[in-house]
Amino acid sequence: MKNSAILLISCPDQKGEVAAIADFVYRHGGNILHADEHADEESGLFLMRVEFDPKDFDIGLSLFNTAQAVHPSSVQIGHSEFARHFEPLAAKFQMKWHLALSAHRPRMIIFVSKYDHCLVDLLYRHKSGELDCDIALIISNHPDNQAIADFHRIPYEVVSVTKENKTQAEARIQSLIDLHRPDFMVLARYMQILSNDFVNRYPQRIINIHHSFLPAFIGARPYHQAFERGVKLIGATSHYVTEVLDDGPIIEQDVVRVSHRDTVDDLIRKGRDLEKVVLSRAVRWHVENRVLVYGNKTVVF
Amino acid sequence: MKNSAILLISCPDQKGEVAAIADFVYRHGGNILHADEHADEESGLFLMRVEFDPKDFDIGLSLFNTAQAVHPSSVQIGHSEFARHFEPLAAKFQMKWHLALSAHRPRMIIFVSKYDHCLVDLLYRHKSGELDCDIALIISNHPDNQAIADFHRIPYEVVSVTKENKTQAEARIQSLIDLHRPDFMVLARYMQILSNDFVNRYPQRIINIHHSFLPAFIGARPYHQAFERGVKLIGATSHYVTEVLDDGPIIEQDVVRVSHRDTVDDLIRKGRDLEKVVLSRAVRWHVENRVLVYGNKTVVF
Amino acid sequence: MKNSAILLISCPDQKGEVAAIADFVYRHGGNILHADEHADEESGLFLMRVEFDPKDFDIGLSLFNTAQAVHPSSVQIGHSEFARHFEPLAAKFQMKWHLALSAHRPRMIIFVSKYDHCLVDLLYRHKSGELDCDIALIISNHPDNQAIADFHRIPYEVVSVTKENKTQAEARIQSLIDLHRPDFMVLARYMQILSNDFVNRYPQRIINIHHSFLPAFIGARPYHQAFERGVKLIGATSHYVTEVLDDGPIIEQDVVRVSHRDTVDDLIRKGRDLEKVVLSRAVRWHVENRVLVYGNKTVVF
Amino acid sequence: MKNSAILLISCPDQKGEVAAIADFVYRHGGNILHADEHADEESGLFLMRVEFDPKDFDIGLSLFNTAQAVHPSSVQIGHSEFARHFEPLAAKFQMKWHLALSAHRPRMIIFVSKYDHCLVDLLYRHKSGELDCDIALIISNHPDNQAIADFHRIPYEVVSVTKENKTQAEARIQSLIDLHRPDFMVLARYMQILSNDFVNRYPQRIINIHHSFLPAFIGARPYHQAFERGVKLIGATSHYVTEVLDDGPIIEQDVVRVSHRDTVDDLIRKGRDLEKVVLSRAVRWHVENRVLVYGNKTVVF
Repeated sequence: MKNSAILLISCPDQKGEVAAIADFVYRHGGNILHADEHADEESGLFLMRVEFDPKDFDIGLSLFNTAQAVHPSSVQIGHSEFARHFEPLAAKFQMKWHLALSAHRPRMIIFVSKYDHCLVDLLYRHKSGELDCDIALIISNHPDNQAIADFHRIPYEVVSVTKENKTQAEARIQSLIDLHRPDFMVLARYMQILSNDFVNRYPQRIINIHHSFLPAFIGARPYHQAFERGVKLIGATSHYVTEVLDDGPIIEQDVVRVSHRDTVDDLIRKGRDLEKVVLSRAVRWHVENRVLVYGNKTVVF
Repeated sequence: MKNSAILLISCPDQKGEVAAIADFVYRHGGNILHADEHADEESGLFLMRVEFDPKDFDIGLSLFNTAQAVHPSSVQIGHSEFARHFEPLAAKFQMKWHLALSAHRPRMIIFVSKYDHCLVDLLYRHKSGELDCDIALIISNHPDNQAIADFHRIPYEVVSVTKENKTQAEARIQSLIDLHRPDFMVLARYMQILSNDFVNRYPQRIINIHHSFLPAFIGARPYHQAFERGVKLIGATSHYVTEVLDDGPIIEQDVVRVSHRDTVDDLIRKGRDLEKVVLSRAVRWHVENRVLVYGNKTVVF
Repeated sequence: MKNSAILLISCPDQKGEVAAIADFVYRHGGNILHADEHADEESGLFLMRVEFDPKDFDIGLSLFNTAQAVHPSSVQIGHSEFARHFEPLAAKFQMKWHLALSAHRPRMIIFVSKYDHCLVDLLYRHKSGELDCDIALIISNHPDNQAIADFHRIPYEVVSVTKENKTQAEARIQSLIDLHRPDFMVLARYMQILSNDFVNRYPQRIINIHHSFLPAFIGARPYHQAFERGVKLIGATSHYVTEVLDDGPIIEQDVVRVSHRDTVDDLIRKGRDLEKVVLSRAVRWHVENRVLVYGNKTVVF
Repeated sequence: MKNSAILLISCPDQKGEVAAIADFVYRHGGNILHADEHADEESGLFLMRVEFDPKDFDIGLSLFNTAQAVHPSSVQIGHSEFARHFEPLAAKFQMKWHLALSAHRPRMIIFVSKYDHCLVDLLYRHKSGELDCDIALIISNHPDNQAIADFHRIPYEVVSVTKENKTQAEARIQSLIDLHRPDFMVLARYMQILSNDFVNRYPQRIINIHHSFLPAFIGARPYHQAFERGVKLIGATSHYVTEVLDDGPIIEQDVVRVSHRDTVDDLIRKGRDLEKVVLSRAVRWHVENRVLVYGNKTVVF
């Protein structure tokens, strides 16, 4: 796999940023492979993603540690050599920034309930090399998907959730997270609601797949809602989880055509294919450090 | 143009309907060109569209008059010869039915405000033979689109609408309708709300284009709403108008991809292309008697 | 699963066919669930698919045997009771016809080489109930996919193919087919060419997936060809195999957008998702007896 | 309209280019609005588009003249002040470059035969402000589209083409071009073949719309070819014209689904909508200086 360094930047829009950043990389021996930027007129924000070849880079990048260098914060890497060199520039432009190395494979935990199509799809893509991350663990409130986890040799933990044990169950989940230290988590059709406290602990680090074209059909049974409304297309939406149900920053959406001939079961079947591709794109882009959040929106570079 | 007869049927689902209808057409010398049917499990309804070549049909069809034979009611043609022959069968199966002749070009009135893209598109498609209907009149609350109407030699009436004159304006519109006797009406980005009384007078005869993927972004400024929400696709929806805003039976929808690079103006521009194709498909299907309404949904055969 | 009978018919277009067929089903107590027909103007052919509920059907359908009642021929079921009743009608209209029962699960053999994405996808869909067929066997020229076959408990036979042993290899494949008696076969990225003799033995019974939007990029390495040409969309095509390479009747196609940012590897990755959905749709439609071939084209009802 | 300067660059890929270019713009007071770049691994080429706000730019840009500053060559602007400042940098990196000002509206000549849908579409988009260019002239080999040209007050010249007068006709076209000095030309369903000499005179300055998904169905009557082959999607392709028929660099493509129900006429009708959007996108991107050609491919920034 190609080794590259990815610098993600967000700051107030002002003159000279691109030049300053490109010059910094160049002066230290980096070769820019891709550069993408976006100036958001409404918020006055400037967002940038620079991917460079660090082969001849004269600043040591070895101290980075994925378990610490958690997107989107750069606090944890404040003592590194790169930060020491980059901070003056960052301060001048009031940058929030994050550096990632493609050689560092982020660690993912997958949550799943009974529906297994997204889980199976992610496991297959991971196995075939589409997703440059490690799967630390699968957490489920049901034992049903143990076999496929075993086939892929991924640890599988059942955490049953009932009305009565919600708090204990989440505490158990938290202890699994503390143990496995994921960089991010994916709700691959996980049918339990996580508490606000939990969600707020991992901003932009929990990716969900909702089986509708949000903001249409928020909440439960969206395919049934779509069937009732008589829409001619159904959709799926992958987004970062926030406190408000199905309201977080959208990473990816797609749709497929339906007709009067399709029953609710047909919608569910067609929707499975949508959910798989939409979620897997979002996960891949997150893994490749392509997603930047501003306000309640995302840029996908 | 091909001359054909189109029989639209809606009745409780029961055995023998297809055979009875096909046999009726055959016995009277009709040659079935297309037959489509749909049994809706939820409502227990059976819907059918039979298009047949009436060349050797032994029942006279000449008495039909589009200005009277208004879809979806068959009351007006109750005295015709066809009805006399078909009624026994219709009664047996409790059919609601409608017969249309493709040779009869339905009459359309187009409503438009300032945005002219849907109007221009419909006029061009009409001129180039895509829409087998006659355009009786264009009604607008602004004089802006007079020139394009003149170019196509379609009468253009300006009915200004203000807060104060709403009732009089609608009365004026009603008198224009009474004069021009349209079979159906199209709101091609007409930005005025029509009264419930008016709307209820023309069930399944007023087609609207809404510039969002309904039921997302109901109401005003949907592109701005879409921009705010950060969706990755925008849509357009064509539907029959009912009392409830943007809630009528959906005839057609489509979407196009957008990204963080697209401003609201880009959404509006991309949306125009969507609105044009979505509305024109709905109008063409309506003209070709392909749309059947059941509950709040449509079948498009 | 719903039990239904599916009657597929192909005959010269003439008056009274729909009535005669619908009447036949009705007279014998069948309730038509879906009826689709198509009259092809060029060839003068009439094609029909009638799906009916055989619960009260007064002709015994139990004698059918999928291993014999091979689509698209009806010769094998000539002695059945249904045939005895239907043949007079069939003779009158010069029908070629085939009757299938949804309760009969057709038997499929999957061929695969090293690329496993289509195989894994078909196995998963089969397991999750999307494909109402039985997988009799997987044949591969490589041992690589044994593990996934084992996981799904499907027999897996390796038949190595070299320049020297082509004839013996095909003989070995033939003996496996004779043993397992499939109703149809699927080439799920099988990279060996089958002989004309072999292919001609199974008309409309071998489904292939080609990784381009045919007829563009016939032959080897279509993604490389597409990359060279600089196309803005790539495609995949599922078709019945005939003597002429990549030229058989097309069952399904789809495309996905690419850009200058996509390398050949990206095209291959994006293409995998296309290939999976396109092939699986074709297989499902074939299993559900929805595909009728006329000339070198298909109707998908 | 927003005033911006667009710098297009193509050069061998090497370290420091982005930094050097961004620094140049910054040092002279420009504010980068958008920057896009692409490094093509195969050819080793680096391509870049930088759009900047020239409000405080300290190099005069007023000398540019669209009639001279013809994309993709920069020869004509060699004497300008910008060139004087930029040339040392350009020489160092062996850049081919072009500077455009969005305030300069390029001049377009449209060629059309009888089919008017693309012409009407371009004229409407131009009128509604979607295309920031001027339409100098419409050239047609038929008088049929005079009326729509008159409606839009665009000069319309008929140059009849017969087997016998091909050379004279092209000479007449050339004289019209010499008179009207377009920056680029659009073949909006122009059914005559232009000579190689003519085509070679205007590299990357003639945009054609071909009514198929190239490279499928090259040459005449592609919709008939598509119908014969039984494809499930039809396409349209916009490309720069080169000597080899339908082989130039592709700017944009799109497709739409068709089925056995669609006749050739339906394909033609559906295709019209495709052709309009595909051609208009290509023209808009060309006008906005978003298209860069490398080898036989395009980058669309």
